[in-house]
Amino acid sequence: ICAKETTESATFVYRGTFVHSTQQTALQILKDALLGVDLSIFFQSLPLSSQFSQLKVISFICHKAVFFGLLHSSEFFMPGLVDTHIHASQYSYAGTALDMPLLQWLNAYTFPVESCFKDLEFARKVYTQIVRRTLRNGTTTACYFATIHTEASLLLGQIANDFGQRALVGKVCMDRNDCVKHYKETLQDSQDETCRFIKELLEKKYPLVKPVVTPRFAPSCTGALLEQLGEIAKNNNLHIQSHISETHEEVKLVKELFPESESYTDVYRKHNLLTDKTVMAHGCHLSDEELALFRETGASLSHCPNSNFSLCSGVLNVRNVLKHKVKLGLGTDVAGGYSASMLDAVRRALDASKVLTIQDPKYKTLSFEEVFRIATLGGSQALSLDDQTGNFEVGKDFDALRINVAAEGGPIDLIQDEEPKILLEKFLNLGECHFLFAPENLSLM
Amino acid sequence: ICAKETTESATFVYRGTFVHSTQQTALQILKDALLGVDLSIFFQSLPLSSQFSQLKVISFICHKAVFFGLLHSSEFFMPGLVDTHIHASQYSYAGTALDMPLLQWLNAYTFPVESCFKDLEFARKVYTQIVRRTLRNGTTTACYFATIHTEASLLLGQIANDFGQRALVGKVCMDRNDCVKHYKETLQDSQDETCRFIKELLEKKYPLVKPVVTPRFAPSCTGALLEQLGEIAKNNNLHIQSHISETHEEVKLVKELFPESESYTDVYRKHNLLTDKTVMAHGCHLSDEELALFRETGASLSHCPNSNFSLCSGVLNVRNVLKHKVKLGLGTDVAGGYSASMLDAVRRALDASKVLTIQDPKYKTLSFEEVFRIATLGGSQALSLDDQTGNFEVGKDFDALRINVAAEGGPIDLIQDEEPKILLEKFLNLGECHFLFAPENLSLM
Ligand SMILES: [Zn+2]
Ligand SMILES: [Zn+2]
Repeated sequence: ICAKETTESATFVYRGTFVHSTQQTALQILKDALLGVDLSIFFQSLPLSSQFSQLKVISFICHKAVFFGLLHSSEFFMPGLVDTHIHASQYSYAGTALDMPLLQWLNAYTFPVESCFKDLEFARKVYTQIVRRTLRNGTTTACYFATIHTEASLLLGQIANDFGQRALVGKVCMDRNDCVKHYKETLQDSQDETCRFIKELLEKKYPLVKPVVTPRFAPSCTGALLEQLGEIAKNNNLHIQSHISETHEEVKLVKELFPESESYTDVYRKHNLLTDKTVMAHGCHLSDEELALFRETGASLSHCPNSNFSLCSGVLNVRNVLKHKVKLGLGTDVAGGYSASMLDAVRRALDASKVLTIQDPKYKTLSFEEVFRIATLGGSQALSLDDQTGNFEVGKDFDALRINVAAEGGPIDLIQDEEPKILLEKFLNLGECHFLFAPENLSLM
Repeated sequence: ICAKETTESATFVYRGTFVHSTQQTALQILKDALLGVDLSIFFQSLPLSSQFSQLKVISFICHKAVFFGLLHSSEFFMPGLVDTHIHASQYSYAGTALDMPLLQWLNAYTFPVESCFKDLEFARKVYTQIVRRTLRNGTTTACYFATIHTEASLLLGQIANDFGQRALVGKVCMDRNDCVKHYKETLQDSQDETCRFIKELLEKKYPLVKPVVTPRFAPSCTGALLEQLGEIAKNNNLHIQSHISETHEEVKLVKELFPESESYTDVYRKHNLLTDKTVMAHGCHLSDEELALFRETGASLSHCPNSNFSLCSGVLNVRNVLKHKVKLGLGTDVAGGYSASMLDAVRRALDASKVLTIQDPKYKTLSFEEVFRIATLGGSQALSLDDQTGNFEVGKDFDALRINVAAEGGPIDLIQDEEPKILLEKFLNLGECHFLFAPENLSLM
């Protein structure tokens, strides 16, 4: 469709199968449903490429339709995938360098590569690739780590905005690095540059892109820096992201570096970094007491199973996290995780759960429906963006993937017509996303 | 190229990077190498579609070239992938039905679906899909389980031949099924039909497709049937395939059903089913004594990590298998494994190894080079086909994949030129194969 052919009060209606999750139901299937999308916002002053994500779900039954899209029986709509933890700056070596544990891996591969992002042209190349790739993979919302460089981090925000991806973007903060000494900041610089980054990014008024306060992780930060970052987040009511309890070695190191804290979680809590807008990656080795602290503060976890396997970090007990009612999303953790696809994250989350069942047959394996919820609604909750995205609730933005399981030349062979639940399960296990970008996508319908 | 433009003595030479494995080296990289392929066989009376697989590697340096193919710097040739264990008949439900352990799963999903293959049109549809799919995925050699139905099993052989895939095809034998009672044979039928299947398939004189004697697994067979099948294999010098020690529950059941045997492995050995042309799937729970029996008899294992995760069966200790010098290949085990791609099998084999390292940090994780060897040369050895395929040794058939890691619109983004080792690692972790079939592939070069 072309904007000129429509009116301000236009409504677009899709008819077909919609699958999504709610608080009550891991998988709700709406067959032969009608979904109306308000197009009025479509004609405001947004850049063309971000318009698709700005469509609002207005109703599930709609009478005054201007446009009408009918889905084929092998098709369905699902919510866009939410990647709650991904290092945009590590994409250049994704799929390689997975032969050592976390702390050595950071020194050998990560820090040397991240230090290259002072070069803005290098940054532009990598950040364009990762935003384009994650969108192609169906990630409509991403929570990014950049690097310590303010300019490059601002550029990542601009690129996400230009491509129309909903994103939290974090300039990384670290004033401690004993091994790769050229890749760190002074306490003062880290604080000043964080404030500048936040100010300049907010001034852009990107509709979908916001800053997130990003201490790398406790071992890379002094207590003074953590203190400052907690202050900055509080004063500006900002999102916070970091890593926690990924490997045993790291937990031990944190105990040595912060002897006054009762636990790794307590380090962050003490510095006001555990809030209901905080997302912490991994948490493989958290105690029940620490999970209770997450619950109390409203902080969430990002489960990154590919990374946890690839770096031999551990296996998160998701069932226990859910039992503690801690908000939980999925993350790719590129490049500790080799895949930038949230479909891979879904598959690896199922594997991780099955590994726990292999170890203890009484362990209740996650169902694919539960993992689907964690990858969509769960992710939006983990990022405190569930008022805007995560499912097809009326009033949320229409962040949606239109899936055709029987697409010609695609990775799935169907022998017969299948129920939507089977279509979804086949898609989650075997599908590949090769989505076009938002505007083209819309125009296809 | 067109056959009419060439002469009988034609040689085709490729120049570029070749990666493969040898007995000595898990990953041998030949940069800027020349590989000559004898095309004379190309003009014999083979069906057009099987010609590519029939090309012989004649030399690595070749002077009298008629044709010359130059590879781009982001390209390389690798050996075709060898799937040592796949149920062609289970492809229709691949990617679904992974919510229960093996023995229940067989009764609930597998036996009812397999019984449908008495319908030849259903069989033709599914078998065409799986052969086409595995070829697209880069599987140039596959070791297939069909069903108990002779006609449908012969059809699978014909389809593999028509598409030009190297294949071992097994009509499944089972004269014991307490749960799905209509899906089994009598002892006499199983024996007679196996003989008929072998005779009729061999009479076709397919150049790449051979029969394999296929007792489903000990719990589905009486001792009398196993005895007969051992005889048939021995008298005709045939390949043998079955399952072994996939889950604890199954091991226990075999102990009950065959109380006179010392171990699961001993059941097969007693009935002459462990030979140097035998491949057994899984082996997750084999004792060191049983591995020693494999070594002695020359029998091999097929490691199917996706299936082992998906059905919560166990995690094979590959390092221990290699230590016992047991021949080892990789298998997808569709549909216990949800993916028909050997690239998935490579990734899951790495995951399985990393899970063992997570459980015991002293466990030496498999390298991607080692898993690459298991997926290619190892598979050819496991199927006793290493005189014909598995690597680029002179005299073997040219079963090769031409990989372009930087293919436009593909799943991999390169930021710069990379070494072949990095290209291979990225491909194994992130690549997708969408190969055209052999003749078109050849004509592209
Ligand atoms: Zn991370
Ligand atoms: Zn099997």
